[in-house]
Amino acid sequence: MDILINKALAGDTRAIARIISLIENEDPIADAVMRRIYPLTGRAMVIGITGSPGAGKSTLTDKLIESFRKRGKTVGIIAVDPSSPFSGGAILADRIRMQRHTGDDGVYIRSMGTRGSLGGLSRGTRETVLLLDACGKDVIIIETVGVGQSEVDVIKIANTVCVVLVPGMGDDIQIMKAGIMEIADVFAINKADKPGVDRVAAEVRLMLELVKDKPWTPPVHLTVAENGSGVGEFVESVIKHHNFIKNSPEGAKFEHRRLSSEVADILLKVLARKTDKAWRSYRNDDVMEALVSRKTNPYSVAGEILKKIFSDGEEGK
Amino acid sequence: MDILINKALAGDTRAIARIISLIENEDPIADAVMRRIYPLTGRAMVIGITGSPGAGKSTLTDKLIESFRKRGKTVGIIAVDPSSPFSGGAILADRIRMQRHTGDDGVYIRSMGTRGSLGGLSRGTRETVLLLDACGKDVIIIETVGVGQSEVDVIKIANTVCVVLVPGMGDDIQIMKAGIMEIADVFAINKADKPGVDRVAAEVRLMLELVKDKPWTPPVHLTVAENGSGVGEFVESVIKHHNFIKNSPEGAKFEHRRLSSEVADILLKVLARKTDKAWRSYRNDDVMEALVSRKTNPYSVAGEILKKIFSDGEEGK
Repeated sequence: MDILINKALAGDTRAIARIISLIENEDPIADAVMRRIYPLTGRAMVIGITGSPGAGKSTLTDKLIESFRKRGKTVGIIAVDPSSPFSGGAILADRIRMQRHTGDDGVYIRSMGTRGSLGGLSRGTRETVLLLDACGKDVIIIETVGVGQSEVDVIKIANTVCVVLVPGMGDDIQIMKAGIMEIADVFAINKADKPGVDRVAAEVRLMLELVKDKPWTPPVHLTVAENGSGVGEFVESVIKHHNFIKNSPEGAKFEHRRLSSEVADILLKVLARKTDKAWRSYRNDDVMEALVSRKTNPYSVAGEILKKIFSDGEEGK
Repeated sequence: MDILINKALAGDTRAIARIISLIENEDPIADAVMRRIYPLTGRAMVIGITGSPGAGKSTLTDKLIESFRKRGKTVGIIAVDPSSPFSGGAILADRIRMQRHTGDDGVYIRSMGTRGSLGGLSRGTRETVLLLDACGKDVIIIETVGVGQSEVDVIKIANTVCVVLVPGMGDDIQIMKAGIMEIADVFAINKADKPGVDRVAAEVRLMLELVKDKPWTPPVHLTVAENGSGVGEFVESVIKHHNFIKNSPEGAKFEHRRLSSEVADILLKVLARKTDKAWRSYRNDDVMEALVSRKTNPYSVAGEILKKIFSDGEEGK
């Protein structure tokens, strides 16, 4: 394990990939690795890129990589892919462009699946960010799939959340995406050469008015990621927000919240594994038959399992 | 408690409302009530209505109520409302129409919040379905908000999931909604008097082709909920699917899965409460400072807390 960790910390791409695989497979070794590398974390700028499929997130991410590389920063990218057989192809196609960076030692790109087709970020995303951070990546970009829960999860991991919108989104989309408005630190209205850009910008600014008493007002940038227009200013805002977070009381609060949710997530992960195992070993045809026929109920069954998990049995009553 | 339960089982609306409030507040009494009423559950037809905001879910639900009432069935509706301050108003407006049923003793309507603005169904939704089932509602309709996780959660609770689409949804939406395609038992393409209806219907049928070796092929109905057109046939399909589920091996499998996830959810709820409590009583300024300065790490902190939770301490090493 020590050799693997040292190789990864020295920037060996294959060693990093192997550790990420251990993380994804929930291998117990991964936990030990995380404890070891943890003291080296907390240095990277962690950016989340979210927004609807088709908004141009991958193209914008590609331009972000370019922009940060020009500034001499190393970059790690976690590209979240949907598990759905329907959507996979369409989105992956957009990501081909990003592959041009694979020859660059300063760039590490990794795809990770979601939990289920509409599910959140995979459980390993948080650990992968910590790993890339420890391995010296200056900037880590998490590109979400733009579907459901992954957008909510990203705020727990990324210090700066960028929301990408496009002109021509109907009112329904605006409502649907209202939740995302609340998590945005920086907005990009991409494909800003298309008609309707002013209307989207106006709608976003109107929504921001409603929450204006916050210490940070999310800037709204018009970008055309295809040709790089507006991307420079967008990157400036991202860096500005990162510095704001690092040097303000809000930043300290955010760091506390992030660490607190990290502990809570680890606890829940261990316990979920434990209950899953307990329920699977308890479950048999008799138990299921008793449930189906209403001879027992899920509450009593859960109580019995809790009694088994906790030797004191206090939850089993 | 006995008086409250008996009143609820006799159909007393205020008693039902009070129990749902206990459920929502995670009052320990609610668990006891659930154990008591559980033997009376498993009779109702449980329908989930999902789809984008603006698709006309509320109007269609309104017509479903009317249709089931004409068939002499009593109906319970759980209308999931987003917690977001932005979207609340817009969606609630659509639901005003449904209020015309409130004078009818055979109809019970309840709004429930989501977990966070993009979150899933509230934890109490499952219990509320069981309660309405035990209280003799023949049909229970869960209308989701059409945002993110709530659509994934509804499949764990509803026997029949109806997905409402509308003409004029762009390709992006189709991709975004791909996950929903997989959970649909019956489709309604609503606002079928609008242009573009044929294209949406063709796209849905094309997607269904990809998963055609299933025992149930989701029927696709064109509806105009506003004037009731196509709603009758849609309801017929819903009833047909309910009977299919009740009388087929797939139905038994679904019931097993549902009960199994019910036990797992209860286990996780108890453990989440327990870990949350444990983390809160363990957390103090010193612990947070040690985490921020990287003197310790979340894995070690979680290990310490697990040691406290489990008297045997096996997880703490």
